[in-house]
Amino acid sequence: MADVVAGAAGKLKNKQLRVKHQRVKLFRANETVLSVFMWGVNHTVLGLNHVSAPVMLLPDDFKSYSKVKVDNHLYNKQTLPSHFKVKEYCPLVFQNLRERFGIDNQTYRESLTASQPIPLDSPGRSNARFYLSHDHLFVIKTLMSEEVEHMHSFLKHYHGYIVEAHGKTLLPQYMGLYRLTVDGVEHYMVVMRNVFSYNFRIHWKYDLKGSTVERMASDREKEKDLPTLKDNDFVNNGQKIYIGPEAKEKLMETLKADCAFLTKLNVMDYSLLLGIHDCERGEMEEEADARAALEEGQQDEDTGGEDSGGDHPSMVPTPPDSPGHARVRGTSNGQIDPQTDIFAIPSQDTAPRREIYFLAIIDALTHYGVKKQAAKAAKTMKYGDKAEGISTVEPEQYARRFLEFMARAIE
Amino acid sequence: MADVVAGAAGKLKNKQLRVKHQRVKLFRANETVLSVFMWGVNHTVLGLNHVSAPVMLLPDDFKSYSKVKVDNHLYNKQTLPSHFKVKEYCPLVFQNLRERFGIDNQTYRESLTASQPIPLDSPGRSNARFYLSHDHLFVIKTLMSEEVEHMHSFLKHYHGYIVEAHGKTLLPQYMGLYRLTVDGVEHYMVVMRNVFSYNFRIHWKYDLKGSTVERMASDREKEKDLPTLKDNDFVNNGQKIYIGPEAKEKLMETLKADCAFLTKLNVMDYSLLLGIHDCERGEMEEEADARAALEEGQQDEDTGGEDSGGDHPSMVPTPPDSPGHARVRGTSNGQIDPQTDIFAIPSQDTAPRREIYFLAIIDALTHYGVKKQAAKAAKTMKYGDKAEGISTVEPEQYARRFLEFMARAIE
Repeated sequence: MADVVAGAAGKLKNKQLRVKHQRVKLFRANETVLSVFMWGVNHTVLGLNHVSAPVMLLPDDFKSYSKVKVDNHLYNKQTLPSHFKVKEYCPLVFQNLRERFGIDNQTYRESLTASQPIPLDSPGRSNARFYLSHDHLFVIKTLMSEEVEHMHSFLKHYHGYIVEAHGKTLLPQYMGLYRLTVDGVEHYMVVMRNVFSYNFRIHWKYDLKGSTVERMASDREKEKDLPTLKDNDFVNNGQKIYIGPEAKEKLMETLKADCAFLTKLNVMDYSLLLGIHDCERGEMEEEADARAALEEGQQDEDTGGEDSGGDHPSMVPTPPDSPGHARVRGTSNGQIDPQTDIFAIPSQDTAPRREIYFLAIIDALTHYGVKKQAAKAAKTMKYGDKAEGISTVEPEQYARRFLEFMARAIE
Repeated sequence: MADVVAGAAGKLKNKQLRVKHQRVKLFRANETVLSVFMWGVNHTVLGLNHVSAPVMLLPDDFKSYSKVKVDNHLYNKQTLPSHFKVKEYCPLVFQNLRERFGIDNQTYRESLTASQPIPLDSPGRSNARFYLSHDHLFVIKTLMSEEVEHMHSFLKHYHGYIVEAHGKTLLPQYMGLYRLTVDGVEHYMVVMRNVFSYNFRIHWKYDLKGSTVERMASDREKEKDLPTLKDNDFVNNGQKIYIGPEAKEKLMETLKADCAFLTKLNVMDYSLLLGIHDCERGEMEEEADARAALEEGQQDEDTGGEDSGGDHPSMVPTPPDSPGHARVRGTSNGQIDPQTDIFAIPSQDTAPRREIYFLAIIDALTHYGVKKQAAKAAKTMKYGDKAEGISTVEPEQYARRFLEFMARAIE
C-alpha cells in the first residue's frame, strides 16, 4: 500500500528521519568582506569541479575571469550581505599554480572557508591588510587595483618561471586573486602560501633588503611580541643563518635565479622574510604548553569543561605575511614536515644554537613599488633589457646588493 | 632541507602526484537552458549548506528568493553560456517540502545534475515542455510566468496542507521552482516527483478528469507507444482499478481531502494520472530484456564491447509528467519498494489481472487553467467561500464529478 495513501504518520516520521541532514556551515566572520571572501572562494573552487582544465594553459586563460553577482531577498541574511559580487581572475591559471605548489582544491577551499581568516597587524608604512587562514597555511593580503593590474600583467611571466623552476624558487606562491564588491566598494585580495609554519613558533622575525639605510625597527615596533626586525638589527644582533656550505650554495643559487627573474621584470624593493625558530626555547615552551594544557584540562574537569578557550590560545597576530606565534601543536616533535614546512631549513650541527629558518622572498609582484616600474617592465619584456633608453640599473643594483647581503648573512 | 631550495625535480613530481584531482563533472546537455538548469540546481542546493534553516518557516520565507548572475570571460565556455541568471523561489520553503517528501538535498542535486534530464513529448494542447530526471525520480515542467505567480501565491496554503496531511496526499509533490535567464529570455521550471517508477514499465496510461465530454484520446495519440488515454477510453476498455474495498476507502479518503483543498482554492481542471503496470507482461518483458542483454553481452565480447548503447535503451519519451517506458532495471523483482515507488498500489488477489497502479493528481496548481481562478481564489482565501458574490460552484461541481468517477473506477 502506498505511503501517500496509507499515510501512517509513524511511517512517515520514520521516513523523515532517514533524510540526511547536511551539517550547515555558515560563512561567519567578523568582517562582512571576509564572509564574502569565504563565500567567493567556496563558490569559485567548487565551480572548478565543473570546468574541464586544459592540458596546457592558453593565452586566453591569462585574460579570463569569472564574475558572479548575488542578490538575495529575505534569504540568508544571517552571515552574508544581500547584495555582493565576486570576481576571480584567471581561475584556471591559479588552479594550475596551486597544483604546481602541491595544493589541491579541497585543501585550498577548506583552509580558507572552514573558519574565518585571522586578521594580522599591518606593517606600519603599508595600507595593505593581512589575514592568516585559520590553519596558518595561507596569507591573504589586500591589494590596490593598480597592484592587481600589475600582478595580472606579470602573471604569464610568473607562471612561466614557476613552471621552469620545478618548485626550486623562493618567490611568493600565489594561489588566487579576487575582487569582492560589498556595498559598492571593491576589495582586492591575493592568497599566497604562508612562509612560516603552524608547527613551529617563530621567535625572531626579519625583513631583509640588503640595504642599511633606515633599515632598523622602530622602538615602537620593538615593543611588540614579535617585532619585524630589519637589516641593521640583523647585523647588530650578530645573527647569521647557519645552514652550512652545501645548503648555502643551493639557497644562493635559488635566490640568484629568483632575483634575475625579478630584475628582468624591472622589479625591486622586495624583501627576504626570515623567521627563526629557536629549538631549545621551542621545546621549553612546548613543555610549558603541555603543562598548562594539563592544568587547564584538570580545571575543565572541575568546571565541566565549558571554559576551554578559543582555537588559537597563543595566537598573537603580527605583521606581515606571517603568523605571530604559530600555536605549537605538539605534533611536530621538533621534526620538519617537508609537506607543510616547505620553507624550513634546519641549522647545521656546528651552529652556535639549534635553529630552524623559514625564509622566502616577499613583496615581489604585489608590492606598491611595482607601480613605478610597470611601464618600464612592459617595455623591457617587449624589447629586451638592452633596448635603447631603458635603464635597468636600479633593479640590477638592488638585486646585487640584496644577494651580497644574503651571501654574508648565510654561513 | 626545504623542497623549494633543494628543488629535486623527482621529489616535486612525486608531490604533484599527491594532489587529489577531483573528477570534473560538466553540466553537459543538449539544450543550453538545461545546462543552466543543472548549474542552477547544483548552485542553489549547495548554497543551502551555508544557510541555517529556521526551526519554523516564517511568512518572509514564502516571499524570499535567491538570485545569481554569472558573467564569464574566456572561461568555462564549453558547456555553459558566458552570461546567464538563475533565480530560485522560496529556497527554504522548497527545502522544507523536499524534506517532508523524504528527499534530501544530496539526492535532489544528484538526480538533477549527475546527467542531463531527458526531454519528454509534450501533450498536444499544452505549450509546456516536460523533462524527466535521468534516474526518473523527478519531472521538470516549464511554466509561464503567470503560472509561477499563481503557484507562488498558493505556496503558503499548499505548504500548510502538506504539513497537515502528514504525507497522506496525492497532490503533486513540488520540489523546487526556478527562473533561468539565457540570452535575455526567461525560462520558468518547476520540479516535482515523478508519479511513475523507474522499476516498473507502464503499459497503460490514463489522464482522468471525471468528464465524458471530448475525453477520448485522438487516433494520432493512440498511435504512440504509450498513448495518454482518457475517461472514455477507460470506460470503453472496461478498465478498473482493482485494489479492494479497504485500499479503496483509504484512497477515496485521500482524494476527497485533496479535492476539498483544491476546491477551497477555487482550482479545477486537475486530473488523476493513472499508470498501469501489467505484472505478467512485465515479467515476460523482463525475461526478454535479460535474454537480449545476454545476447548483447555476447556480441559485445565479439566486438570488444564498444557498442553497448545508451543508458536508457528502452526509453521512449511520452507525455505528460511521466516516463514512457521506464527501463525495467530487474532489481525490483516485481516487488514494490515503498521508498521509491511511493505512488504504487498493487491489485488485489481477486483482480482479473495482476496489476500495479501508479496514481496521483496532476495539473493542480500549475495548470494554465488556474489563471482564471486566481483572483477568485485570493478572495476566497480572504473572505471564506461563503462570502457574497463569490461563486465556487464550478470547482465544487468539478470535484464532485471527479470523485464520483473515481469511486466508480476503483473496485
